[in-house]
Amino acid sequence: MRRVAIIGIGMTEFGELWDQSFRDMGIRAGFEALNDAKVTSEQIDALYVGNMSAGRFIEQEHVGALIADYAGFAKNNTPSTRVEAGGASGALAIRDAFLSIASGLHDIVVVGGAEKMTDVSDEEVNAIQSSAADQEWETIFGATYPSLFALMAARHMHEYGTTREMLSSIASKNHKHGSLNPKAQFRREIKPEDVIRSPMISNPLRMLDCAPISDGAAAVVLCPLDIASKFTDNPVEILTTAMASDSLALNQRKSITEMAATKVAVKKAFDRTGLKSSDIDVAEVHDNFTITELMAIEDLGFAPKGQGGKFTMDGNTLVGGQIPINTSGGLKARGDPIGATGVAQVIEIVQQLRGKADKRQVSDAKIGLTHNVGGTGSTVIVHLLGVPK
Amino acid sequence: MRRVAIIGIGMTEFGELWDQSFRDMGIRAGFEALNDAKVTSEQIDALYVGNMSAGRFIEQEHVGALIADYAGFAKNNTPSTRVEAGGASGALAIRDAFLSIASGLHDIVVVGGAEKMTDVSDEEVNAIQSSAADQEWETIFGATYPSLFALMAARHMHEYGTTREMLSSIASKNHKHGSLNPKAQFRREIKPEDVIRSPMISNPLRMLDCAPISDGAAAVVLCPLDIASKFTDNPVEILTTAMASDSLALNQRKSITEMAATKVAVKKAFDRTGLKSSDIDVAEVHDNFTITELMAIEDLGFAPKGQGGKFTMDGNTLVGGQIPINTSGGLKARGDPIGATGVAQVIEIVQQLRGKADKRQVSDAKIGLTHNVGGTGSTVIVHLLGVPK
Repeated sequence: MRRVAIIGIGMTEFGELWDQSFRDMGIRAGFEALNDAKVTSEQIDALYVGNMSAGRFIEQEHVGALIADYAGFAKNNTPSTRVEAGGASGALAIRDAFLSIASGLHDIVVVGGAEKMTDVSDEEVNAIQSSAADQEWETIFGATYPSLFALMAARHMHEYGTTREMLSSIASKNHKHGSLNPKAQFRREIKPEDVIRSPMISNPLRMLDCAPISDGAAAVVLCPLDIASKFTDNPVEILTTAMASDSLALNQRKSITEMAATKVAVKKAFDRTGLKSSDIDVAEVHDNFTITELMAIEDLGFAPKGQGGKFTMDGNTLVGGQIPINTSGGLKARGDPIGATGVAQVIEIVQQLRGKADKRQVSDAKIGLTHNVGGTGSTVIVHLLGVPK
Repeated sequence: MRRVAIIGIGMTEFGELWDQSFRDMGIRAGFEALNDAKVTSEQIDALYVGNMSAGRFIEQEHVGALIADYAGFAKNNTPSTRVEAGGASGALAIRDAFLSIASGLHDIVVVGGAEKMTDVSDEEVNAIQSSAADQEWETIFGATYPSLFALMAARHMHEYGTTREMLSSIASKNHKHGSLNPKAQFRREIKPEDVIRSPMISNPLRMLDCAPISDGAAAVVLCPLDIASKFTDNPVEILTTAMASDSLALNQRKSITEMAATKVAVKKAFDRTGLKSSDIDVAEVHDNFTITELMAIEDLGFAPKGQGGKFTMDGNTLVGGQIPINTSGGLKARGDPIGATGVAQVIEIVQQLRGKADKRQVSDAKIGLTHNVGGTGSTVIVHLLGVPK
């Protein structure tokens, strides 16, 4: 396999972008990434697009071709592949693009992730998000996406003594990081008490335990590592991509206080690279709910099982801590435009490894990890990124 | 790049499968392919799933994880990737799986394509099919999928003197082939006069110019060519995969009597392999409408521009003719469950190259081509397959 590097990044601000269409956002993020990589559209061999549900959010399937067209690639007939794995659609697009270069088929490839969520009603958003869970065995009986994660949170509290305060500390920490990120949807701090005072969504999860509904797009440019220096002085290598699945419905799992797919994916990633949890300098993990980050901290090996909450309360996951997590603000504060999220995670790690993360910079960051989840853990994708040696 | 072979095939019958769910169909096709390849689910490194719009047809996104789960792969945490490119989703899944093996990441991979179209109303099917065209610039103004292809047909008639009888001969020929295929949705012959007597859909296209609405699933098993002989005596090699895009909306094209993406994709495929049109022994081309096959015959180089109709009337595309096309019955007679179609095309070519196509066998077939279209030609994927040397 050829080694693959990231040579350009671009993203819109995340938020309720009433004045921008799906097309507008995709184009803006893509052009910013092309400019950052100093490549022109004629040099691009292929596009990969991560998107969960444009079919329902904007009644448009075939968004691979759409983005290729509106970003000006159709005139070169550049192939464009759309992938989907619920909330992990963005990481999946990066994985696919990585393989297309690793195989030798393509040289320079653009990856885009995008979702336009605010053009439909809140009820419809809820139905669409829930369609990443099991329609026949969960959502048809009234289970919603938050209620499935609430089951995991309640069980984690029961088994490990995880507390309301521990969950709150995760939201508070991510807002603190988000306040330092100019592209974050929420750029203000919240206190743990604010979380506890926010409206109940599904016991024990409250509104400020949940990532918001967001519009946004993010893009990266990839090429073989051996030609990366033609385009940039600070390439970041994708050391490996690892992916695992689990049952679609929660009731089929042996445990709902962990995500088995996270454990399998990260083991694959570490086995392939010879790295271990303690080698990671900075990580972006999936925190669509506070409980999701808490489980990720444990399943990725940053803290022992059952200790994710205490580990956070002790400040280990803040910038300056033992393993800074979600320095971007995470899904909670940066925002979660579903298909864009996995790409935005990678962009944050690239900024950290370039040493360009400004006030949220992790000192001497050399190795980063991203962790992107689809459904309730039915798909997990882990990427390891590093400063090339 | 490692060379890649197909070692197993499986598919459901195509049709209105009222008694089978999306899950049922996916499982049946997948198990048939695993049995054909004589592999077990434990040996599978990854799944790739082609599906256009389960989000709208059955209100379920994340169908990669769904298929992995219900086919029994979730217990091994096997990664599963869903891809989408409108009508070309099936071929895209094969392309992605091919690259994952060519890169060296995976060894044995299952590709599945599936669509469950008959659980929603005809009006909804029409809206969903049209969502592969341009929602903002075509369908919102009332254009439907058939009406866009009708524009192409009318213009082709105007520019090249293509006649009603020529279009009818394509439908009639595909039904003749379909009558020989036990898994085809329509296994009866129709006369060209039957097409002319069928109800008008969008002038000049009549009902029997259109592929039906179908349920169905199809699957293939891939592995590196160098280990294929462990599993089968008759592997079929995927010689190359080539893909191209074009504008999403028809009004942005220089010509609507050809598909530029077909021409670009097939040129790539021929350039990479050193093959040419006259080397192809059998082809499955996209015939969602009769005009689509007619243009494909020309754009793939089987007949000069403007001569596709006459070429068909002269019998060149029948089994026994110069270049048998759609020996399976094509989308028209075998059926068109969108995400399954590109996989079913490849299965037909595998059967031909294995010499197992029974009454529709093309004698001494060694090289085959598949041509799968998304939208009105905004995505085209061409695969070349061959008996390995």
